Amino acid sequence: MTNVFVIGLGLIGGSFALDIKSVRGHAEIHGIDTNEDHLNEALDLGLIDKKAGMEDLEKADIVIVAIPVSTSLGLLPEILDLVRDDAVVFDVGSTKSLICEAVADHPKRRNFLAAHPIAGTEFSGPSAALKGLYKHKVNIICEVEKTAFKLQEKVLKLFADIGMRIRYMDPASHDRHIAYVSHLSHISSFMLGKTVIEKEKNERDIFDMAGSGFESTVRLAKSSPAMWAPIFEQNKANVIETLDEYIGNLQQFRELMEKGDFEAIYNEMENTNRIKEILKGINVPTP
Amino acid sequence: MTNVFVIGLGLIGGSFALDIKSVRGHAEIHGIDTNEDHLNEALDLGLIDKKAGMEDLEKADIVIVAIPVSTSLGLLPEILDLVRDDAVVFDVGSTKSLICEAVADHPKRRNFLAAHPIAGTEFSGPSAALKGLYKHKVNIICEVEKTAFKLQEKVLKLFADIGMRIRYMDPASHDRHIAYVSHLSHISSFMLGKTVIEKEKNERDIFDMAGSGFESTVRLAKSSPAMWAPIFEQNKANVIETLDEYIGNLQQFRELMEKGDFEAIYNEMENTNRIKEILKGINVPTP
Repeated sequence: MTNVFVIGLGLIGGSFALDIKSVRGHAEIHGIDTNEDHLNEALDLGLIDKKAGMEDLEKADIVIVAIPVSTSLGLLPEILDLVRDDAVVFDVGSTKSLICEAVADHPKRRNFLAAHPIAGTEFSGPSAALKGLYKHKVNIICEVEKTAFKLQEKVLKLFADIGMRIRYMDPASHDRHIAYVSHLSHISSFMLGKTVIEKEKNERDIFDMAGSGFESTVRLAKSSPAMWAPIFEQNKANVIETLDEYIGNLQQFRELMEKGDFEAIYNEMENTNRIKEILKGINVPTP
Repeated sequence: MTNVFVIGLGLIGGSFALDIKSVRGHAEIHGIDTNEDHLNEALDLGLIDKKAGMEDLEKADIVIVAIPVSTSLGLLPEILDLVRDDAVVFDVGSTKSLICEAVADHPKRRNFLAAHPIAGTEFSGPSAALKGLYKHKVNIICEVEKTAFKLQEKVLKLFADIGMRIRYMDPASHDRHIAYVSHLSHISSFMLGKTVIEKEKNERDIFDMAGSGFESTVRLAKSSPAMWAPIFEQNKANVIETLDEYIGNLQQFRELMEKGDFEAIYNEMENTNRIKEILKGINVPTP
């Protein structure tokens, strides 16, 4: 019997619970969450086999920490204090530098693996959990060399079994790159939503003029502030840099419009069209 | 036999051709396009029954003008010159003020209906045409009172039969509102794509770190520059206004990050989360 503990039963933790259950039939899934309603919901939905508390962590073989990154900073060292020497703990947070720092000098650093599965939806809570969410998705692993070899093997085998593609990276590079391809998208979407909602205060009923294009660009503005505010805080310097570049590009586009240089605007768009080819690349799973 | 002419056999024109064929079995669909390849492709795909030229427009009962808005300005008066007194011509452009102005004093103004179906995808050309694209979608009609009553009836019945919901609006209001819920989304998406592509020049391989969130926010950056540059040109003043508001909101978000006021950032996101309810509203078709 493998005892798997999932701390934080939202979209990400709940989806791991479902996938692990399906590839490790013998595993017992224990759930920990400060939100008692979420814990009961996770039990009702069959995400977990039983509710647990921090005091049960001594039984754990595998611990998944799927909570806001601000909470992880304080809780990860406590979790490592509580687990056995042969247990492995991994997090799934969207920032990696501060999290790796928080456990850098912990006596059980070798029991920890820093991970970031690139998967999710704009929804949150136990009911948002999806079976197969991680299939063909990239999982970024940081500082793999700091995790005990046998525990690396164990967790990487689990990731492989649920269909993930592994990419190794140092925490600083992770945080710099992810600011561009994830964190900035969330801000652009939230601010787009804000801009249009503000307009709607004065001009009623503009939303029935919105189509699927608006819906797509504003989708991430549904995301959980409790998850995202701490991510922006932990990745502040990188996010500000991407925002400055984004704002600069928007200002330049605005100047071209003001000047009436629509040939330049055509060229800007045509150059950016190659995002088509790039996105195709994202969607082709490695055979 | 009803003779329907579709001028411009891209996503929008081609999809109209498909839907009209399915609700008007007796109609013959004639295609006109300056791009001979598109014309042949439309014929091969069964979007149209036969190829036609401008000189055939005298046979037309219904003419759909689905070409870039810049081309419509010059071509619409010519088309009206060529059609019979009982024919009806409608356009589908994403701007309405300049198009309505272009035909305002035409002797056949009563043969024209200004429309903007809120439907589409990021793809273009005849192969992008989709059957049922317009089902439950909003179609904005401008200056309906300027179209002959019997011709209004004829086209509105057609729109109803292919499942569209009709909304009436004056051209200036259309252009002001659509800048927020459509044109701005396209710019935010194009500039997001540009910002990340520029980064990739220096930092290789960041795109396999991108997930579905990035893909969703950047989807519209695949759109056709030939279609969009003229839209931005015709709606310049409104688009610049929305861009200024969007850039202002991004700058304010950046300042909050710089100051480290993540409580305010949390609140910004929480306030914008109500886009969830608004988007739900978009997706519920009127019974």
